[in-house]
Amino acid sequence: MKYCSNCGETVEKRIPEDDNRLRHYCTSCESIHYLNPKIIVGTVPIKNGKVLLCKRAIPPRYGLWTIPAGFLENGETIEQGAFRETEEETATQVEMDKLYAIFNIPQIHQVYMLHLARVTNDDFKETTESLEVKLFSEEDVPWEELAFPFVPAVLKSYFKDARNNDFPLTIETIERPKSPKN
Amino acid sequence: MKYCSNCGETVEKRIPEDDNRLRHYCTSCESIHYLNPKIIVGTVPIKNGKVLLCKRAIPPRYGLWTIPAGFLENGETIEQGAFRETEEETATQVEMDKLYAIFNIPQIHQVYMLHLARVTNDDFKETTESLEVKLFSEEDVPWEELAFPFVPAVLKSYFKDARNNDFPLTIETIERPKSPKN
Repeated sequence: MKYCSNCGETVEKRIPEDDNRLRHYCTSCESIHYLNPKIIVGTVPIKNGKVLLCKRAIPPRYGLWTIPAGFLENGETIEQGAFRETEEETATQVEMDKLYAIFNIPQIHQVYMLHLARVTNDDFKETTESLEVKLFSEEDVPWEELAFPFVPAVLKSYFKDARNNDFPLTIETIERPKSPKN
Repeated sequence: MKYCSNCGETVEKRIPEDDNRLRHYCTSCESIHYLNPKIIVGTVPIKNGKVLLCKRAIPPRYGLWTIPAGFLENGETIEQGAFRETEEETATQVEMDKLYAIFNIPQIHQVYMLHLARVTNDDFKETTESLEVKLFSEEDVPWEELAFPFVPAVLKSYFKDARNNDFPLTIETIERPKSPKN
């Protein structure tokens, strides 16, 4: 952030009164611009013990596999956002199940909130966001071609929990290097 | 948002290519500025079955009672943010317990994530954010003077669950009118 989104003047970094963190502050209109973590919502879509994965058709990590997930939008609940992202990336409308996994990734200012979901139709297919959409059993998951660190984390949890038929909420923190773009 | 925070030129609202929502778009530098929901973290701080509440010393809802909670900051996990907010508002360092409640409030673009916590010291006291910090039993809670709709929601859940000594994760959506400021 270089310019004030309210008045267009340049911003500077300063610790506002009654605060203890550097913020983007506009000396012209006195706006304080807070930057906060974003929520990524998604699903672990399951059919007959297999998980529905998407081969990414967009950057970052073009051509690698992921579960359907993306930024929660204003006006949505986390469950609505997860359903929407799943449809956008797989073309199918899943039946939503419980909140299953939360991943903190503090270095990149993101919190992932992932629901289990049931794939009840066979109409999943490639989309503008996915080159390929396909069900994988545990042994067939392309473990070496997964797009992001949270994907193997949640898939390993899922297949372990499936053996016990018990799916407690898992909350983990993923450490990763700060992206140069942040 | 009126001006581009990247180049200072005026932004317009448009649906970018490969998108389906209106975004703030800069025709000068082509930046797209996404606005997404924010996470509020906090605790339900408990001692001997009583809950620690804070009388707000800052707007909004000055003088009304709340549990300690505030915006998650970049670089924090949800648990770290909840601990920090609790110390900032009550001056005491709690022992963090499990994630207990999630409230979607889509109209104001917020998701609340509240942990249970144990108050283990008696050093809680007023702070720059709280006029008064005090333990309340269920019958003594100032039910008519609570600051926000999520406060009675989580307190009612807590006291009900305490009777059963079972504290499952509760996920609810709170409907409230859109704030004029949003």
